[in-house]
Amino acid sequence: MAQRYVRIQTATGQLYYGLLHLDRRVQVLDAPPWMKGQPTDEELLPNDYHLLAPCAPSKIVAVGKNYARHASEMGGMVPEEPLLFIKPSTSITAPDATILYPPQSKRVDYEGELALIIGDRCIDCTPEEARSKIWGYTIANDVTARDLQRKDAQWTRAKSFDTFCPLGPWIVREVSAGARLQTFLNDEAVPVQSASIEEMVFAPDVLVSYISHIMTLLPGDVVLTGTPEGVGELHVGDRVRVEIEGIGSLKNVVTLRKPTALPDPPLESESAEETSL
Amino acid sequence: MAQRYVRIQTATGQLYYGLLHLDRRVQVLDAPPWMKGQPTDEELLPNDYHLLAPCAPSKIVAVGKNYARHASEMGGMVPEEPLLFIKPSTSITAPDATILYPPQSKRVDYEGELALIIGDRCIDCTPEEARSKIWGYTIANDVTARDLQRKDAQWTRAKSFDTFCPLGPWIVREVSAGARLQTFLNDEAVPVQSASIEEMVFAPDVLVSYISHIMTLLPGDVVLTGTPEGVGELHVGDRVRVEIEGIGSLKNVVTLRKPTALPDPPLESESAEETSL
Repeated sequence: MAQRYVRIQTATGQLYYGLLHLDRRVQVLDAPPWMKGQPTDEELLPNDYHLLAPCAPSKIVAVGKNYARHASEMGGMVPEEPLLFIKPSTSITAPDATILYPPQSKRVDYEGELALIIGDRCIDCTPEEARSKIWGYTIANDVTARDLQRKDAQWTRAKSFDTFCPLGPWIVREVSAGARLQTFLNDEAVPVQSASIEEMVFAPDVLVSYISHIMTLLPGDVVLTGTPEGVGELHVGDRVRVEIEGIGSLKNVVTLRKPTALPDPPLESESAEETSL
Repeated sequence: MAQRYVRIQTATGQLYYGLLHLDRRVQVLDAPPWMKGQPTDEELLPNDYHLLAPCAPSKIVAVGKNYARHASEMGGMVPEEPLLFIKPSTSITAPDATILYPPQSKRVDYEGELALIIGDRCIDCTPEEARSKIWGYTIANDVTARDLQRKDAQWTRAKSFDTFCPLGPWIVREVSAGARLQTFLNDEAVPVQSASIEEMVFAPDVLVSYISHIMTLLPGDVVLTGTPEGVGELHVGDRVRVEIEGIGSLKNVVTLRKPTALPDPPLESESAEETSL
């Protein structure tokens, strides 16, 4: 089995990068592996830690409509150029952790995706250069409040809620070109999403190159490569599992985000008045 | 004059937070001031440092169409709720530094804005709570590739280029409710933008509260509060200056981003083929 790179938290709150052994012991690294982290003498037993998302990016750059049949199911065409949006780092949640269903939404969807981990500062790269800067691969769920996405036109709110980016469970250095991505709900045997990552319109190296001509990608940054067809609704209580062949399985459960006082109602009268000027 | 909080880099590359005195000496702080940074014995002379953006946020959350007459000049209405987008931290550039005009755009605009600096972790806050979590204020220029904004529908690419978020020159703790925001080009005496920050549709505390019900704001994070009417074009060679009464003046120059090889052309034939499935 391929080497698996993890990020963990110990019972005392220490954060480490590490190598995950088959017996689930973790060999601690002295830095992120893409920053030349080396194994230390410290080893942790399965009860001594829990998994976090396997990196802590400065940003998550995501791509919309990068599988033709998904673009189609959303009622659109594949864009001529990659369609970018950003998810904040605060949206990241750990493998096995909870996706919080926000009270503002009545329609929250899963979107299983292949995630790229950037190993090196990346600016104005060609696709060839970009290839060497993709340090590894993991799994993401680009959770989306579909009703708010439609309402807002801008996708930011719909994609940015806390816990809306489950990521992990670990990073591997290679993924095969035709690896299958599948999403499962609860105990259903039939996946709700199933596609080969080869079906992407813009391949990982093209995406990273494209993004690097706009914004500098930093070590540990994450690029989400889009979801295939089959997106659908999550409900409170659901378990959702995204699997990618050769990487593993990212599992999360959905619970309700505690409703709290929402901000003051919009200043509708004032807005209406001023726009008529 | 109000206390001015800066972030600086020394000739040897050291980064510090500090207090800027009237004679431009900087008193070094041992941590960001919103993390209870205290003055140290170290003092730097004007030739020993240059100003950076005054904070290093994990994210910049920005708000579109938050001044009615600007919404109007863009051909739209004020939204019913704040319209959010995210600029990546890599878009930040220092006071007096260069805005790089990207070769992908033929129309880059300035947008002068009031920026809020978050002092405390902020989640599900009421506007009252939010008020106490706004640590200070600075000036931003939300530079935007207008042609790409129109083309992409999503604003991310247009708003995310490296150097598209000049920020600074320093943070002050208070700004008066009716402070005037003005943007000037080159040596023109007449501002291209001039408004009172009071004209905002959603006030700072309402914005921070609204955002905190979606994503956690962290200490040092930045909220951009929208631009008033009068947005317009920047050209290579232009100097642009955003001023806010009681804060100061944020100056930048526009130079060309070196054109480099762009990514492979879009896979138009393949896309067309797959979308016809």
